[in-house]
Amino acid sequence: MAKTAVIGAGSWGTALSLVLHTNGNDVTVWSIVEQEVQMLREKHEHVDKLPGVKLPEDITFTTDLKEAIEGKDYLILAVPSVFTRSTAKSMAPFVKKGQVIVCVAKGIEENTLMTLSDIVEQEIPAADVAVMCGPSHAEEVGIGLPTTVVAGARKKSVAEGVQDIFMNEVFRVYTSPDVLGMELGGSLKNVIALAAGMADGLGYGDNTKAALITRGISEISRLAIKMGANAETLSGLTGIGDLIVTCESKHSRNRKAGMLMGQGYTMKQAMDEVKMVVEGVYSAKAAIALARKYEVAMPIIEEINHVLFDDKPAKDAVRELMLRDRREEHSSLEWEE
Amino acid sequence: MAKTAVIGAGSWGTALSLVLHTNGNDVTVWSIVEQEVQMLREKHEHVDKLPGVKLPEDITFTTDLKEAIEGKDYLILAVPSVFTRSTAKSMAPFVKKGQVIVCVAKGIEENTLMTLSDIVEQEIPAADVAVMCGPSHAEEVGIGLPTTVVAGARKKSVAEGVQDIFMNEVFRVYTSPDVLGMELGGSLKNVIALAAGMADGLGYGDNTKAALITRGISEISRLAIKMGANAETLSGLTGIGDLIVTCESKHSRNRKAGMLMGQGYTMKQAMDEVKMVVEGVYSAKAAIALARKYEVAMPIIEEINHVLFDDKPAKDAVRELMLRDRREEHSSLEWEE
Repeated sequence: MAKTAVIGAGSWGTALSLVLHTNGNDVTVWSIVEQEVQMLREKHEHVDKLPGVKLPEDITFTTDLKEAIEGKDYLILAVPSVFTRSTAKSMAPFVKKGQVIVCVAKGIEENTLMTLSDIVEQEIPAADVAVMCGPSHAEEVGIGLPTTVVAGARKKSVAEGVQDIFMNEVFRVYTSPDVLGMELGGSLKNVIALAAGMADGLGYGDNTKAALITRGISEISRLAIKMGANAETLSGLTGIGDLIVTCESKHSRNRKAGMLMGQGYTMKQAMDEVKMVVEGVYSAKAAIALARKYEVAMPIIEEINHVLFDDKPAKDAVRELMLRDRREEHSSLEWEE
Repeated sequence: MAKTAVIGAGSWGTALSLVLHTNGNDVTVWSIVEQEVQMLREKHEHVDKLPGVKLPEDITFTTDLKEAIEGKDYLILAVPSVFTRSTAKSMAPFVKKGQVIVCVAKGIEENTLMTLSDIVEQEIPAADVAVMCGPSHAEEVGIGLPTTVVAGARKKSVAEGVQDIFMNEVFRVYTSPDVLGMELGGSLKNVIALAAGMADGLGYGDNTKAALITRGISEISRLAIKMGANAETLSGLTGIGDLIVTCESKHSRNRKAGMLMGQGYTMKQAMDEVKMVVEGVYSAKAAIALARKYEVAMPIIEEINHVLFDDKPAKDAVRELMLRDRREEHSSLEWEE
């Protein structure tokens, strides 16, 4: 049993607070939004973001960041990726050496191209930083459907500590030292989900979508390996696993925005319709910047950028992907002659 | 333009004959079933197996194997896997050196543990043997939805020949020298599709299914690599790509049989209900035999075998998979301390 705080009361933070509580940990949930904390205290349910999931009476809710952080063993950082740096700055004065911060959001900062764990390490040098991700819709974790994730940290003891506080019979936690591979897979998958959604919107079938998913993870792997990540990670739960869930699920905003663009909406019209942050649109810019910086060919990411920012029709983008030069599937494999 | 014959007029053989014809090749289709050839000649449509897809007038249909084979550059072997050896035996007397046989079915022979290309090479030593597979439901190829596959052969020239006759703007063909990896992925995926179906039948969500797919391909990869295949292939179109399509699609018989077992049907009841060959049930036996022969841990494959052949409830199998010892995602990666 550990003392834990969840920083950020969105759907994922709320679902994880329930997992932590189920496992017998002491749980405090922090939100910057006064009304959100009031609602959680009164209803013991996040009626907007995780409706129908009741939270136990003995979870503490607060807007006081100092109270949330002090004396805790684990701080689960669950704010949206765009607020990661500002939240980390606010946390820094209260964090003591030895406290573990677990980043559970995903994203790449547009101007610096840093991952979220990079940002937290920069802003809070005192903390041990870990990440946790995998194919895990909050809606399903909230109702106890079997889910697997990976806890990543450079030090094995830190990753195993995260595994210990979260793991139970419906929430299986693996460990990994490849923090970079996990974060790249988690961030860039949203761009491929846009492409998969476009294929759905164009009325294409399962064959086309499976091709986009598979060639998509192959592009992301090429980039990630060049940046220093491991191929195994991109073939694992936080890579292809998370990508599958995002591309197939009715819960995914990225896929929905892609579908609308496949049906002829512009990027702006699609964003207005979905009414929430479509992470893939930002990640698409970061992905193309990384592809150029590391000189990696990423044809799907390039075509998606054309659709998003140059008003290229999705149909033309798919057609060009199908018609590229005929080639080998994996150029590294050797032939007999 | 090449002279081609498709041996076997099931849904996949029929769809591929249309692709070959679209690309300007000369096409003959052979079936052992007299009534099937009559129907194809009269209606120019396979009304049972690929209804709604019209075939051009100048495709030749025949039951005469000698006529089908003689003078052809490419023979596409599209009979169900259980008939591969007997059909290859019948073809052998007519096949001349330099003719290419492209295996497009998937399976592992139960008693010998040989792949289909192994069988064809053994029965027809004169031929150059290739394989072609990937995420490709015949129903979608038949109506021209964008699809990607891989042509595999040990010699690059053979694989490129297959690529040449099939590739067009809605049917993208990559090449690969890793025939073994392609065939193992294609055969063993059906066992994982049974598991994914069981999860659906149990009412689990996208998180659980993505976990089974990802950990499933990870098991298959471990086995395939030990047998001499390449990891890249299992992460590619014929590995994870084909697995995704099989686990997500409404067209998949394996997934449907799994769903019924998840709902409490025994294996026999599920097979009776689906009314067609459920390839995964046979592959499950071959997979466990290979796992033992090559000493590879395959927990999902093992649990599926218990459900299929020892009447273990699917729910208990999933529970045990979630509760195994806590572990690293990829034991080969190194930690900092």
